[in-house]
Formats: sequence, C-alpha cells, structure tokens
Amino acid sequence: MKIAFLGLGIMGRAMAENLLAAGHELVVWNRTPERCEPLVEKGATRVATPAAAVEATDLCIAMLADPEAACDVVFAEDGVLETMAPGKSYIDMSTVDSQTAEVIAYEIETAGGRFLEAPVSGSKKPAEDGTLVILAAGDKSLYAEALPLFEILGKKHLYLGAVGKAAAMKLLVNMTMGGMMTLLCEALALGKRCELSAEDILEVFSAGAIANPMFAMKGPQIAANQHSTNFPLKHMQKDMRLAIALGDEMHQPLQSVATANELFKRAVAEDCGELDFSAVARTIGA
Amino acid sequence: MKIAFLGLGIMGRAMAENLLAAGHELVVWNRTPERCEPLVEKGATRVATPAAAVEATDLCIAMLADPEAACDVVFAEDGVLETMAPGKSYIDMSTVDSQTAEVIAYEIETAGGRFLEAPVSGSKKPAEDGTLVILAAGDKSLYAEALPLFEILGKKHLYLGAVGKAAAMKLLVNMTMGGMMTLLCEALALGKRCELSAEDILEVFSAGAIANPMFAMKGPQIAANQHSTNFPLKHMQKDMRLAIALGDEMHQPLQSVATANELFKRAVAEDCGELDFSAVARTIGA
Amino acid sequence: MKIAFLGLGIMGRAMAENLLAAGHELVVWNRTPERCEPLVEKGATRVATPAAAVEATDLCIAMLADPEAACDVVFAEDGVLETMAPGKSYIDMSTVDSQTAEVIAYEIETAGGRFLEAPVSGSKKPAEDGTLVILAAGDKSLYAEALPLFEILGKKHLYLGAVGKAAAMKLLVNMTMGGMMTLLCEALALGKRCELSAEDILEVFSAGAIANPMFAMKGPQIAANQHSTNFPLKHMQKDMRLAIALGDEMHQPLQSVATANELFKRAVAEDCGELDFSAVARTIGA
Amino acid sequence: MKIAFLGLGIMGRAMAENLLAAGHELVVWNRTPERCEPLVEKGATRVATPAAAVEATDLCIAMLADPEAACDVVFAEDGVLETMAPGKSYIDMSTVDSQTAEVIAYEIETAGGRFLEAPVSGSKKPAEDGTLVILAAGDKSLYAEALPLFEILGKKHLYLGAVGKAAAMKLLVNMTMGGMMTLLCEALALGKRCELSAEDILEVFSAGAIANPMFAMKGPQIAANQHSTNFPLKHMQKDMRLAIALGDEMHQPLQSVATANELFKRAVAEDCGELDFSAVARTIGA
Repeated sequence: MKIAFLGLGIMGRAMAENLLAAGHELVVWNRTPERCEPLVEKGATRVATPAAAVEATDLCIAMLADPEAACDVVFAEDGVLETMAPGKSYIDMSTVDSQTAEVIAYEIETAGGRFLEAPVSGSKKPAEDGTLVILAAGDKSLYAEALPLFEILGKKHLYLGAVGKAAAMKLLVNMTMGGMMTLLCEALALGKRCELSAEDILEVFSAGAIANPMFAMKGPQIAANQHSTNFPLKHMQKDMRLAIALGDEMHQPLQSVATANELFKRAVAEDCGELDFSAVARTIGA
Repeated sequence: MKIAFLGLGIMGRAMAENLLAAGHELVVWNRTPERCEPLVEKGATRVATPAAAVEATDLCIAMLADPEAACDVVFAEDGVLETMAPGKSYIDMSTVDSQTAEVIAYEIETAGGRFLEAPVSGSKKPAEDGTLVILAAGDKSLYAEALPLFEILGKKHLYLGAVGKAAAMKLLVNMTMGGMMTLLCEALALGKRCELSAEDILEVFSAGAIANPMFAMKGPQIAANQHSTNFPLKHMQKDMRLAIALGDEMHQPLQSVATANELFKRAVAEDCGELDFSAVARTIGA
Repeated sequence: MKIAFLGLGIMGRAMAENLLAAGHELVVWNRTPERCEPLVEKGATRVATPAAAVEATDLCIAMLADPEAACDVVFAEDGVLETMAPGKSYIDMSTVDSQTAEVIAYEIETAGGRFLEAPVSGSKKPAEDGTLVILAAGDKSLYAEALPLFEILGKKHLYLGAVGKAAAMKLLVNMTMGGMMTLLCEALALGKRCELSAEDILEVFSAGAIANPMFAMKGPQIAANQHSTNFPLKHMQKDMRLAIALGDEMHQPLQSVATANELFKRAVAEDCGELDFSAVARTIGA
Repeated sequence: MKIAFLGLGIMGRAMAENLLAAGHELVVWNRTPERCEPLVEKGATRVATPAAAVEATDLCIAMLADPEAACDVVFAEDGVLETMAPGKSYIDMSTVDSQTAEVIAYEIETAGGRFLEAPVSGSKKPAEDGTLVILAAGDKSLYAEALPLFEILGKKHLYLGAVGKAAAMKLLVNMTMGGMMTLLCEALALGKRCELSAEDILEVFSAGAIANPMFAMKGPQIAANQHSTNFPLKHMQKDMRLAIALGDEMHQPLQSVATANELFKRAVAEDCGELDFSAVARTIGA
C-alpha cells in the first residue's frame, strides 16, 4: 500500500519506520526536511509539501506535535487541503483537542475526503515496538480499511464513534498519566526526606494495587535525576491544559488534574519543558 | 507457635484466619467481643483484654483501625503494657503515623519487650489470600523470627530500618493510592460527560502505561456506582491526613495529595465515609 | 458629543444611562433589541446593527459579555468592521483576553480606525454610580480624548500601554476577586460548622487587615443564602479560565487561582452559573 | 493593676509595653531572659519562671508562639499550673488550636483558676499601636474584668462563647489572610510576566472591591522583594495547618486553604520560614 506520512518527530519516525518495515510504500514529509533522511535511506520518498504528499497517495497519515501543527499542515499554504479530493483519505494520529479534530474533519470532508482521528496512547517505546493503543473516531469505513495498518502500529485499537471522541479519550489517558506522575514524584520526594530509599519505595509500589508500567519505567529515571525525553514535559502540560479546557466546556471540575497541571506549568517555567515529563520531579523535589 | 492477635476487623480477621489455617495456636481479642466468634469456632481462644492476650503468649500481633485504637490497646487499662515483659514481643501491623509507632515502641521496649511495626499494603482481598505486602521496621531480631508468619500473611516483606519508617512507607503507598483514585474518578466523570463509556475508558486505561490493579478492580465498581467496602473511605482520608502531616513535619509540599485529601474530606462530609474509598467517585461526579 | 453604545446588559445599560444623563447624545444597539427601550425613552436613538451604530457616530463604545460576543459585534455580518473607517474610533470596554483585544485592535486599525481597550473593575453598583475603575490600553490619543467620558463612568482611570495590557490587568483583578470569594466562603463554611455566627465572623474580618468592600458587601448575602446577580458566576468563571490561560501562555503557575476556578466550575455544574458569583458559597457549604 | 505577662516575642513585647505605658504594674517572663530587659528598664519586674509570675500576681497574660509553647508554659516544670490557685486568672492570647485551648482551660480550672482564651487578629503594627482585634472565649466574668486591659491592647473585642471558639475564629482570620497573600502574589507574579508594573497593579487593586489593608501594606514590600518580619511565614503556615486540621475534624473541605498551605510549606522548605509571610512571594515568583 502506498501511504503518505506527515510528521517525523519522536513518535512519527518510529511509526513510519514500522510501516516501511512491514512492506508499505512510503511518501514522507517533515517540516525540518533533514528528519526525513533516515527514512529515505530505508526506501521512503521525500516530498516538499503536505499538498504533494496527499497528491501522491490515496491515504495520508499525520503525526504532529500539537493542535497548531496539526492545523498548519492542513490549512497553511501547500497544505493538505489544497490537494484533498474525493477518493482520498486522511488519518490524523496527533493528539489534539476535540474542536481541532472537528474543524479538520469538517474541511477534509467538505473537500470530498474521508477523515479519521486516531490519536495513540503510548510514547516512544511502544511506537518503536508497534504496541501503541490506537483510539479511533470518525469515518467508520476508513477505520475498517486502516485496520491492517493499525495492527502494524499498535497492539490494540478501539473505534469510539463521532470525530472528537478519540481526542477526548486521549486527553483522559494523558491527564491521568500526568496526575499519576505528580503523585509518584510527591511520594518519592517525601520518602527521600524520610530517608526511605527510592529503590524500596519503588519495590513496595510495584508489589501492590498501584503497580503500573509507568511507575516501573519512570521511577528509576526519577531516582537517578535522569530525564531523557520519551514524551516531552511541555507536551504533557499542553495535554493537561486541553483536558482542563474540555472539563471547562463540559462543566466537569477536575481539581486533581488542575493541581497537577500547575505543577507541570511550574516545571516548564523552570526550564524542564524539553525534558521528559518525569522531570516534574525536579520542581516537586523528588 | 502460640500467637496473640488483637483486632479482628476486615483485615485482622482475614489475617488471623490465615495464621490459624497454617496451624498456629491463636489467642484472640477484639473490642467488640462477638467478632471473635468465627475464629473461636475454628479453634482460637478468646481472652477478655489485651493484657490477658499478652500474658498468654510470647508474641502478640495487633491490627487496629487507626492511631487512636493502636494507642488505646497498648496504654488503656487492661492494655498491652500491663503485662508486657522481657521475653515478650509485640508486632503492630496497624497503619499509624510515625510518631505513634515511636511512642508505642518506646513504651514496649521500656517494659522490656521487643517491638516491630509492620503495616501492610493491600486490603481485604490480599489479606484473605495471604498476598499482603508487609512493611517492617524496628527490632531486627524480631523481624527475623517473624518471617515464617509474614510468609503466611503476605507475598512480600521488606525490612526498612528504625521504627517509624514502615509507618512512613505505608503512608506513601496510601497517599498515592488515594490520589490515583481521585484521578480515575475525574477521568470517568469527564468521560461520562463526553459520552465515552466507562467500559471503553477502562479498556484503554488497562492497555497502557497507567494500567494498574486498583483501576482494574475499582473501575467497574465506580461505573456501577457500587461501593461495598474493602477499605473504608474515612480510613483512606485519615491516612492522607497523616501523610500530609508527615509532609508538614518534613517540609515537603504535597499539592496533589492535599487536593485529593480535600476531595476525600468532601466525600466524608457527604456521608460516604463508611463506604469503600472508591465512593469519592460520588463527590467527583463519576 | 455623539456616541454609539453597543451592549446594554447589566453593566452597559448603567454606563449608557450615565453618559446620557451627562448630556451626551447616544446611539444604542443591543442584540436583544427590547433592552434598548429604557434608554430610548430617555432620549437615545436605537439602531439595528453595530455597523449602523458606527456609521452614525465617530466614537463607538462597546460593553459585551465575553470574548465571543466582543468578536461577533466586530466581525459578524453587519458588524463594526463594515463601517469602520478613518476618522472613527472604537473603545471596547468588555472583559476579554489579551489575544481577543489584539485581534480586534488589528482589524479596527487596518480599517483606518483608532482602538482603545478599556475594561473596567467594578460591577453593577459602581457602574450605576459612575465609580468604575477604567483600565485603558491602546491608542494614546484616543485615551486623551476619551478622558471626559471616563470621568463620567469611573472614579479612576489608568493608561497601561499597548493593547492587551488592560485585558491582562482586568484578569488579575478578577482572578484575585474570585479567589478571595472562595476563601471567604471556606471561612464562613468552617465557621458555621464550629458554631460561630456569620455576623461575628464578618465583624472580625471587617476590623482587621483583610477587611475589604467585597467581603462587606457579599458576606451578608452569603449568610442569607441570597445571591441576586451583580456579576454572574459563569462570567467570573470565564475570567478565571482566561487568567489561567494567560498564566499558561506566560509560564506562570497559578495554584490558588486554579483551585478557585475548579470550585467555580463545580458551582456552574450545580446550576449556579446565572446567580451572583457569591453563589460559589453553595458548592463550598457556606 | 498588677499583671504578669509571659512571652515577649514581637507581639508580646509590644503588648506588654502598652500595658506598662498605661500605668499597670508588670511582672514579666520570657524563655530567653534577655528579651525582658527593655521592659525591665521601663519598670517591669522580671521573674525566673512562669510559676513565679503566677505566684506574684492574680492575673497572668500569656502570648506564646505556638501550641507547643503555650502548653509548655503551663504544663512544664516551674509552669503556670504549679502556682495556679483559686482567686487567680489566666488569659492566653496565643494563637492555638481549639483542642489546646480546651486542654489548658481544663487544667487551669481544675486548679481553681479562671481561664479566658483571647487570641488576637493583627500583627506587629497593631500590637504596637494598641489596635488589635481581640477574640475572647471562656470565663465570662473574667472577660468583663479584662475589658479595661483589652481596651488598651485593641480597638475591638468580641466575646464568642465557650473555650475553643476564639481559637477557631483566629484560625478563620489567618487562613483567609494566608490564602489572600498567595492570591496577591500570584497576581503580582503574572503581572510581572505581562510587563505590568507592581505599582499599577497595586493602584488598581486599591481602587476596587478587593482593596484591603494587607494588600496595601504587603504589596510594596513584595514588589521590593523585602520581607522584614511582622508575622513569620512559619507561623502563618502553622496556623493554616491548624485551620485545615479543624476543617478535617469538622468535615469541612477547604480546597483553597489547602492549596495556599502547600505553597507556604514550599516557602518554608525554601528557607523563607523566618521571613515575613509575604515571602511566599518568592516561591510563587512575584
């Protein structure tokens, strides 16, 4: 299958490589063109614009950093909309808010294309391993056709209904993850002051009802004050902001998430935005 | 081995039954004496006071509801201290604050006894299944002697050092658990308002980095608005209060835990204190 | 002076009446046209659209409910932009976020007009009494010319610099006010549970360093559980949301404001959005 | 009148000087005896212990730093209780929690004495100026007799009922003050990032419904990053902790106060505990 892939950041590159490795023909585009090179070396074709990528294929997948980037790629000059047409399909796997997903869906469909939003749960490692959880919503026929690709990229995929619902689900996952990270850091910080070792704390946590892969992976990283980036802290903070905005719109108070969000904002202000989101540990004192 | 067991609440009864089933001889006491009956039927001997329990055996284990009860059993008339003596040992498995553990340890040791604090991570089900995580601190020789009993009661046991450290570790576990519960409830509440099903949310959560046994066990319970009590909400709120007080003493701010604690306090005020701690869902709107 | 006035809600109507009473000639417009009638009876001229209002005068003042309304009046069909032209001026006294102010300023100036943002501190009563505090930013020559009008409407006016700064200042005032309201309610709620009378609490508060007009005005209202609307709770919550978004953009964590915002969101969810913002007392238990 | 005065910290010394200046005969005691000297130079008599102070007079007033100090002075060796007797009275003006006040009252009254708790609202300046607000509870006949002294020390005094209620009222004042301080700091911090001057912000705040003496006094101090101590931050944090504990006991959630408390705890951890409580500005970034 010939597929266009837009956005080759940490996530996008790993996903594109998996599609390529599975034998698909890939047309790639990235804002910083040099990031295309490793894929081109493996056989992908680079194009100069999102419009060219859509023109060259019937199915285009995008994995962009945030709602602004997701909109730019569609609406800006030489963007997706310029060549979108009946018979073509667009799957946006970026994490965006529901409104952004709805606006993009509306324009793609008005241009005659089919649209699926398909944000993922999981960061660098699951992207590389093809074990993402894919949350899809929008055109159901496109979902059905994309299943073979989703099986390459992920270990699980759900169809959630109308456009906007996958974006909402993704925000639920990330707001919970961000909140859990602040809790882990508060526990490690308090433990440190009580002269309990991080190793003992993490062992106890791993043995009980709160044991989870994130604590297991990030805990030792926090104990070592080493925060190489799987999921940038500033992106986590953006997702928490979007989750709170969704709560605002739906009249759902989110005291715990709002508190965690302010801690992440403090971490951004303290220059941890580019580090892994575990770096909120620094502002908490873990 | 002949063991005295004080406190036959949800946890204590399950633990005492496991010791009995493993072939140990048991002397039991409970404030409400009727709660001793199921154990007496299985062969335990009931005594009228904590002092009598200590007198009848060389090793006494206590599992009480809170710091007040833990102190009462030791210090009140007919309490443990009256018969504590050299050659006798006392293991307090209740969840208390570090200061309470230290006060009890001091008095037991002054009376010539050995003391171990050994609070557990895990509630009703792990207590019944003998899969608790046992956090021990205090007299190391007593820890060594108690290991065969801990292997009956739990699946893991750690020795953490001086008295007070196990209490602190237990509070780290519970404050994290309480915070995670408020996050789960906020996610389910927001999801409900976005017309995402609790089933889908829990499936997505179970497939990713935040998957944990507590979400798996409590999630469906919350979705069903059914909160039969494993761990009473008012006890969780007490533990969060103790954790925050520990943070206060150690100068560790705990914004996320403090926020969660206020939500639990609200749930107590709304008459959910006797329900399972998952009932904070009601005040959050999940 | 002949002035157009757009928006005759609680605030706008009182301000327009003061301008009329001071002898100015008024052209009025309101989305719900019936709200123009009291002013028409006092001599104002009603027009059918914002565009007509701008066409009929050289100076147009707007006082709208929120950023959406402020944008609509300018950008929608028959809006301000259609007739904006060199020689004409536009003063927007609505409370909006900085970005909205900047977008409106840009378009008005592109059309050749002058623009001043001039949100106010103070609600119904100061609007009626002409004792608002007017926070102005934008075209300095227009500020100088508008001073005689600001002296009718307010007791104090400041020029703060470039467009966006007055909006930011207004959000600082309102976020502080919202936060102080939640504190007052928590104090009254806790006092009630301690069997301290609201009268005693308010007397003590009024005698010390925290005494302020808002507590004096709203305190008895809360004690009487009577929340007739001066400043609708949902508008306060919107302003807190905008303040937090500003903090987000500027990388300033706002833990206290975020907490208060979630309490206001809860009050909105509990159907208090149309009541005075003091009605957050109901969700807090005061 | 011959009066004993225990505790000559920032507050106690100013109060004792006012009593001395009004012509009363004073017996003084302080843990650090050198602090008695300025008063001895003005005619007060120093005694070596609280017990001696009580013995030498019929009325003893105490102004101690915290509940621990208030208890120590009464219960420790050479403490108040040793010489308390029928015919003697004890007025504790320290800020303590209700339980501490009740314990002290019980013991004083058991020894035959009369007891009044009379914490004050107001810090260094009002203490010096004799413009404190005195919150009294306990023995009503003692309240009546103490009125002439209260008129020297304060500008307002209320009798609130049974012992414990004045302590509770004091905590309401201080928790509100602490919360308002964090709000002021968040506003100044956000304003700074928006390039609004602290002067303009404080002028706008002083002109509206939120204007209050604390903002007027502390605002310029914060703007100058100068925090010479009127009311030590660590004492404010202690009072917020006590307020939250009271809320806990009475089942009143206090989200806003809890959030502010964690910010104060952070300030204590960042070595601002001995500075004025306005120094929470440093942790907030104002």
